[in-house]
Amino acid sequence: MTTLKNDTFIKALLRQPVDRTPIWMMRQAGRYLPEYRAVREQAGSFMNLCTNPELACEVTLQPLRRFNFDAAILFSDILTIPDAMGLGLYFTEGEGPKFKKPIRTAHDIQTLAIPDPTIDLRYVIDAVRMIRNTLEGNVPLIGFSGSPWTLATYMVEGGSSKSFQKIKSLMFNEPLLLHVMLDKLAQAVAVYLNAQIEAGAQAVMVFDTWGGMLTTEDYLEFSLYYAKQVRALLNTNVEGQTIPTILFTKGGGQWLETMAEAGYDALGLDWQTDIGYARSRVGRQVALQGNMDPVSLYAQPEIITEKVKTILQKYGSGSGHVFNLGHGILPDINPDHVKAMVDAVRQYSPDYH
Amino acid sequence: MTTLKNDTFIKALLRQPVDRTPIWMMRQAGRYLPEYRAVREQAGSFMNLCTNPELACEVTLQPLRRFNFDAAILFSDILTIPDAMGLGLYFTEGEGPKFKKPIRTAHDIQTLAIPDPTIDLRYVIDAVRMIRNTLEGNVPLIGFSGSPWTLATYMVEGGSSKSFQKIKSLMFNEPLLLHVMLDKLAQAVAVYLNAQIEAGAQAVMVFDTWGGMLTTEDYLEFSLYYAKQVRALLNTNVEGQTIPTILFTKGGGQWLETMAEAGYDALGLDWQTDIGYARSRVGRQVALQGNMDPVSLYAQPEIITEKVKTILQKYGSGSGHVFNLGHGILPDINPDHVKAMVDAVRQYSPDYH
Repeated sequence: MTTLKNDTFIKALLRQPVDRTPIWMMRQAGRYLPEYRAVREQAGSFMNLCTNPELACEVTLQPLRRFNFDAAILFSDILTIPDAMGLGLYFTEGEGPKFKKPIRTAHDIQTLAIPDPTIDLRYVIDAVRMIRNTLEGNVPLIGFSGSPWTLATYMVEGGSSKSFQKIKSLMFNEPLLLHVMLDKLAQAVAVYLNAQIEAGAQAVMVFDTWGGMLTTEDYLEFSLYYAKQVRALLNTNVEGQTIPTILFTKGGGQWLETMAEAGYDALGLDWQTDIGYARSRVGRQVALQGNMDPVSLYAQPEIITEKVKTILQKYGSGSGHVFNLGHGILPDINPDHVKAMVDAVRQYSPDYH
Repeated sequence: MTTLKNDTFIKALLRQPVDRTPIWMMRQAGRYLPEYRAVREQAGSFMNLCTNPELACEVTLQPLRRFNFDAAILFSDILTIPDAMGLGLYFTEGEGPKFKKPIRTAHDIQTLAIPDPTIDLRYVIDAVRMIRNTLEGNVPLIGFSGSPWTLATYMVEGGSSKSFQKIKSLMFNEPLLLHVMLDKLAQAVAVYLNAQIEAGAQAVMVFDTWGGMLTTEDYLEFSLYYAKQVRALLNTNVEGQTIPTILFTKGGGQWLETMAEAGYDALGLDWQTDIGYARSRVGRQVALQGNMDPVSLYAQPEIITEKVKTILQKYGSGSGHVFNLGHGILPDINPDHVKAMVDAVRQYSPDYH
């Protein structure tokens, strides 16, 4: 194993002393970068890009060449597991992900098989290995997956949803059947993340994009419970190194206290939650990742600098903060504005360490 | 003034003793009712329906004929004020509200005039008067408006939005200009709600549909501040009767403590917030309205009954709870399922009073 040249991100997640606040961005390899758009065009489709390890490796590294990010994140999609389960993931322009064969019957659920990532998701594992080698220990590589609940929403709805009628009808009318599905997904996510760790991922993140659409009690029963199951199944000790884990629930600000007990090292925060208040609630248990409003990157660079200073000041002194946006970067952000954010974190964060 | 035959809703908002928990539903006059769809078709367009007091009165009363609701709510739209300001509100099937002339320049903001509701929104005031008379004191009539922030989002975006790029860019880059606009909107909303009260509205509700898209500090500065302004300008004492006020911020569960200090009698809760926990945080200051997941009305009636029992039990004993959904009823809900909810509230809520 290469020793990390920059382990600020890993240390911050483990709340060990650092000399500045590390930063990376959700969706940092994305459409706001012209060099990404060029590769995406070359690939022909988003799925072609995901399933080609060389191209996935290339776009993973692109943002690191431009910005002083402290971590790389595997270029992939949160929905690779259901695709490997045979549901047929595809993307239509402007409409988000869809499945050709969504879950429709109890039989569909009962026959779901847990993919072997080294076979069924080999393209991901190959990409992880290639990226890890190409990074040469400069910064750590983050692996990831959708959470069991979030995967289930797409699998039952067949795509994005506004009201989540289908998955919630299943949840209300046949909760045991949904539990069967979520239990399989928790196993599948854990096996998948463990394979990413084995192939070289140095931290892993679980994206619970739709946990925030649930009532508190449904969130605990159908989302957080399975995020905990995943965490319990992860192999986070690799050759004496700890692999930090991050749980991000969009819209989960009200539930931070219970989320902090799920076993993850860090919680991702969306931009609605005040990071100072969040720290006062759970900062003794977990690190926090976030949480600048992604839309604030449309602001002028000097205003972006002020927003960064505010977030650093709200988090306050000491380790345990990974700077990030509160959600993925939007596709038409000017890359110079990203640079303003990264530069401000570099310039002003050492004061807090 | 007619004395109210059923004042349970008013009393619950004022946290005065009641013998059962009152119930009404956001968007209770809506597409889930076949009789609504018939009138809507007759009107030709949604705006025709809103601007015709006889038809608006008719659809307002329709849900009361079917269900034991404890309040009527004016049939109208949250965006009538910007329409009266000359922005040209219209609706396209499945895409939500839009404006023909959205706010594009500083000049557009500087020239915005505060509408005189008795002239520019006369159709609303006529509808309020007609509904109030037709109700004959059976149940109280709720008037409403969008909040200044929510009106501003539609006026600047030109319609619904996912990222709120335009309004937030204005907020970040030219906050003073946005404050000018919000100040005018706060005055306009207050004048409008006062005219509704004068015409017969017996409670008023401010819908802050998009406050929850803001960071905590932006919410306080650009949304809640103006909701407070509105409240301060309301005439809530009519012939010795108190007109209760309700503030509903979708996605505002994290900010209940500060919302409770805004001067409103009650806070509306979306379904993500646990109503028992909400009561423990703010129940000594305000009543709470909500908060069943609107999607749970797709569940089987016996499951709906259980959901109602859970919410009643979470709120617990005593006045101060108005049963409602956590957001508007969805258009394809079976009216029999609404009946199951209303019946359960009637049957089980007396135990808590």
